[in-house]
This record gives sequence, C-alpha cells and structure tokens, in this order.
Amino acid sequence: MTTETALPGNTGHGHIDGQGHLDDQGHLDDHGHLDDQGQVHDYVHGYSDTEARRLGDQADTLAGLLHADTGFPAGSRVLEAGCGVGAQTVHLLANSPGVLLTAVDLSAGSLAQARARVAAQAPAADVTWHHGDLHRLPFPDDAFDHVFLCFVLEHLPDPAAGLAALRRVLRPGGTITVIEGDHGSAFFHPESPAARRTIDHLVRLQADGGGDGLLGRRLYPLLTAAGFAEVDVRPRTVYADGGRPALAEGFTLRTFVAMVEAVRAEALAAGLTTPEAFDLGIAELRRAAEPGGTFHYTFFQAVAVKP
Amino acid sequence: MTTETALPGNTGHGHIDGQGHLDDQGHLDDHGHLDDQGQVHDYVHGYSDTEARRLGDQADTLAGLLHADTGFPAGSRVLEAGCGVGAQTVHLLANSPGVLLTAVDLSAGSLAQARARVAAQAPAADVTWHHGDLHRLPFPDDAFDHVFLCFVLEHLPDPAAGLAALRRVLRPGGTITVIEGDHGSAFFHPESPAARRTIDHLVRLQADGGGDGLLGRRLYPLLTAAGFAEVDVRPRTVYADGGRPALAEGFTLRTFVAMVEAVRAEALAAGLTTPEAFDLGIAELRRAAEPGGTFHYTFFQAVAVKP
Repeated sequence: MTTETALPGNTGHGHIDGQGHLDDQGHLDDHGHLDDQGQVHDYVHGYSDTEARRLGDQADTLAGLLHADTGFPAGSRVLEAGCGVGAQTVHLLANSPGVLLTAVDLSAGSLAQARARVAAQAPAADVTWHHGDLHRLPFPDDAFDHVFLCFVLEHLPDPAAGLAALRRVLRPGGTITVIEGDHGSAFFHPESPAARRTIDHLVRLQADGGGDGLLGRRLYPLLTAAGFAEVDVRPRTVYADGGRPALAEGFTLRTFVAMVEAVRAEALAAGLTTPEAFDLGIAELRRAAEPGGTFHYTFFQAVAVKP
Repeated sequence: MTTETALPGNTGHGHIDGQGHLDDQGHLDDHGHLDDQGQVHDYVHGYSDTEARRLGDQADTLAGLLHADTGFPAGSRVLEAGCGVGAQTVHLLANSPGVLLTAVDLSAGSLAQARARVAAQAPAADVTWHHGDLHRLPFPDDAFDHVFLCFVLEHLPDPAAGLAALRRVLRPGGTITVIEGDHGSAFFHPESPAARRTIDHLVRLQADGGGDGLLGRRLYPLLTAAGFAEVDVRPRTVYADGGRPALAEGFTLRTFVAMVEAVRAEALAAGLTTPEAFDLGIAELRRAAEPGGTFHYTFFQAVAVKP
C-alpha cells in the first residue's frame, strides 16, 4: 500500500540552497549532486533509468554494511528524510517489516522513482510518500517513533538546522539513525599525491555548493549540539584488496572512482586542475583496484535518542 | 619457564638499516624509533621505566581490538618476531595459553624488559628468548606452526625480505599473523591542514629512516608477493569522539598525538617545518580530543597461510 501527500508551500526543489542538488538526497555514493551544478540540467529533477539502476546496485552492495543494525519494530511510525530514488528505502523496509513508513524527498522525480522501486521490491509495504522539504515538514510534533536518513546531511548547507527540524517531529524517546560517508577517509595503495588532489577537488566542489563531503566525522558533535542524547557513532569500513576483486570493482571503481571522475568538467571549469592532472589522478586512483592495490573508505552510522 | 638463546653473529642492533631504530620493533604506537634518530641516544638500547609502562598501557588499551582474533592452540610452536619490550607478548600469551613461544628481538635491552614483563604477567608461560635478527634466524626450516608480528614491518627497509625470512621458518600449512598501523588512515574533526602537515612530517621522517608509516594498506600485496596464500586482511578501526572520553584521552592524545609530537626536534632539524607551524599542527590535532572533536585511525590485521 502506498499513499502520497503533497502539501502547499513545498515547491519541491531548490529552496534549501538554491542549487537544486538536494534532489539527490539519500543516494548512496550519488555523484549527481556534482553533475547537476550546471552541466546536466535534466539531472536535477530526476534520474535516467541507467543512473537509477546504478544507484540501486550500489545500495544493494553496501546494504549489509550500512543497514545491518537498523531494524524498527512492526507498527512503528518511521520517517525517512530524503529518500531520493528509494535506493535505501527498499533496504529499510526489508529490515523492518510492518513499519508505517513516511518517505520524504524534495524532488518529485526522485520520489516517483522511489515509489516504483518500492512497488517492485516491497509491494506489501505501508508507505506514505511526501513531496517536500525536510526543514519544513507539515507533520505535528512527536509524530514519529523513528527517523532515518542516509547521505542527506552532507548536502545541507546547515545540517544542524536539518537535525533540529527532524527532532521536532520525533517523539521523546524515539531514535534518529543517520548514515553518512566521509571522502577524507579514503586512502589507498599505491599512495598517489595526484589521486589525493583529485579527491580533494570533489570535496572542494561539494563545499562550494554548500555541502560537506567530510560530514561523517562530524556526526557526533552535530547530533549532540542538536540536543540528541545517547549519541552512538560507529565507523562502517569498506576495505577492498586483491583478495576481494568484486568489491574492488563494485566499490573502488564503480562507486568511488566513478564519483570522483564525475566532477571532471566541473573541476576544470572551476580552474582547480588541468585535464592532464585530473586524468592522472583518476588513472592513479584506479590502480587501487588492481590486484596489487588496496582501497579503504569509512562510512559512519549514528543512532541517537530524543530526550 | 623462560630460556634464552643468543647466537654468535647477531650483534643485536643496527645491522638492518644501520640506524638502530629497529630496537622498537613490536611496540604499539611506539615513537621511540623517531626519538632515537639522533636525539636521545640512550633510547636506542632500552626504555626508561616510564616509557616501558606507557607502551604497556597503550598495548593494554588496544589489546581487545588487535588481539581479539588471535589465538593459537596449546602446544603449538609460535614465533613472535620483534617482540620489543613485550607489550604485545603478554597479550599473545594471555590469548593462547599453553603455546611454546619463541620471542625474538634485535635489542638485548628490550628483550630483557620483555622477559621481566612476561615474568610478572605470565609467569607460567613457556617462552624461549632469542636475541637476534629476524632476517637471519638460526632456526631450521618449518620450525614453527605460527608466526606473529606486530608493528615490525613498518620499520624494515625491505619488508618483503623480512616476510621471506619468516616464511622459511614457518611450516607448510602454518599461519602468519601481522598487525600494522597506517598513519595516513588518521582523520579527524575539526579538519586542519596544519595538523595534517604535521602528521605528514612523521610519515616523511619514518620513510627517510627506511621505514613506512603507511604500511598497513600494503599488507595484502606484501604477503601475496611473499608467497603466502589465503591472505585475509582486516581493518581494525579506532574511533574516538566526545562520547568516548577515555579513548580520546588514551588513544587520540596519549598515543597518536604523543607519537607525532615526539618528532618535533627531528622535523625541525630536517628543515621540514618551523616551531610555530609544528606547534600549531599539534594544537589543532589536540582539538580532535576535545568534546566536540572526533578522531579515526585504522590498524590492519592480516592472517595468511604458508602453502
């Protein structure tokens, strides 16, 4: 069963930071938020089938890592803030059968894809779809037992404000679960200054766009400052080496390198690098996925309670 | 029961890289290998009581993380290569009661402290102490069922040669367990370029001394290239935030920051930095241990089999 709400006052996009890249809230390793800063404008309001499939595949690969500890009791009222195309939503539903889920996203296009994904993969799930801004949710105070968000805070210019808005709709004693990456956690063999500079361009561009690609490490102070209690943050590490070729291919190359590579035109346009330097960085980063290479990345999962 | 062997031909120090800093093989987060590059010469051949206690305390703090999966059957012949002052040795013995341990170190002074530590903490353990070089062990081929080394490869100019020498004395089907850190895995909040440069000085000085402070990420390719099979490398993460003040104090400040801070005079002498820049880096790194800060570091544990 799925229902949909769309309240007046929610324009659907662009009113948080004016750049439209909040469309891709909630996507695992989604690089669309960089692509859509001027290059592929269609990208702002939705995803191609190929892109949505890629995001779904990546979420599936990492679902065990990111969702293993997340399970909500049947009958509990759960809010997913920034569901994007539903890549995480289907895993949330699989791990928490019987919940009453409300999924919110700023992008109508993403929300439509999320609905389709859930209809295909979790047709019996009870989901209310809401097209709107997580900062201005129309729900009453204390409306939810649990709040979940994944790869959302990194896109917000003021993540503390986002957390405060979500705390309002969470009941006292309810939990918030937040999953974020941290691009500064990436390290690899062979070490390469050129590759490291290329990753730094991604972080810089995300910062210029009002986001923070290094948000994972900030989860504890952000949640405590927002008034949550019992804040428990745990690193979730992806490590790939020659003994894990599927992970080297699926995560190192197709997820991480692809994400960095996607900012090429933007990094050049911003004058951060040259084509030669950028391409060298990507080529050297790719070596981490060869049999003699290794790659390490840390996601963070936080769980906290509203006092 | 403890016995000791000391064969002719082992001069006891300095004959691997000529700098004497192999004395501190096997010490958790030991920064003596940097201190002893010209500053505190007494340090080369032993440790002050305070220093040995500090190393022991740190090993105890991290023992659960680093040793949890390491247990050898009673009666098995185990070689610890580079036991140092025995900081890891006592944990190995605690987790593997009844093993027949041979502990090797290049430094007679460290070995004496290791003996004293084991006598105090594991008086019933069966340990043979050998003063010598892990590259030229006097033991026959296939003499051991298991080999263990912790924070040793990072100090060797040619870790592949060290692994080859250890493989010789391991029986076919026997395992090697290797634990190493990786200083490039450190990341923290608040982010600080000054702090990062200061850590880079530590890595640079270790490299100049023939070692590799980024060795952890290389364990898989090193072990496979050395002919080991079933190589299984796992990251072991230390993450400290305001919710874990004891870890922020014990690991972030007393272990990691102390290690970086210890290279101050050496970094200045090498012309890598200025007093002001170095001290700023340390001050900013210390902020990671304040209530609003976070700190992340990854050790690697590898287990592999001799075919």
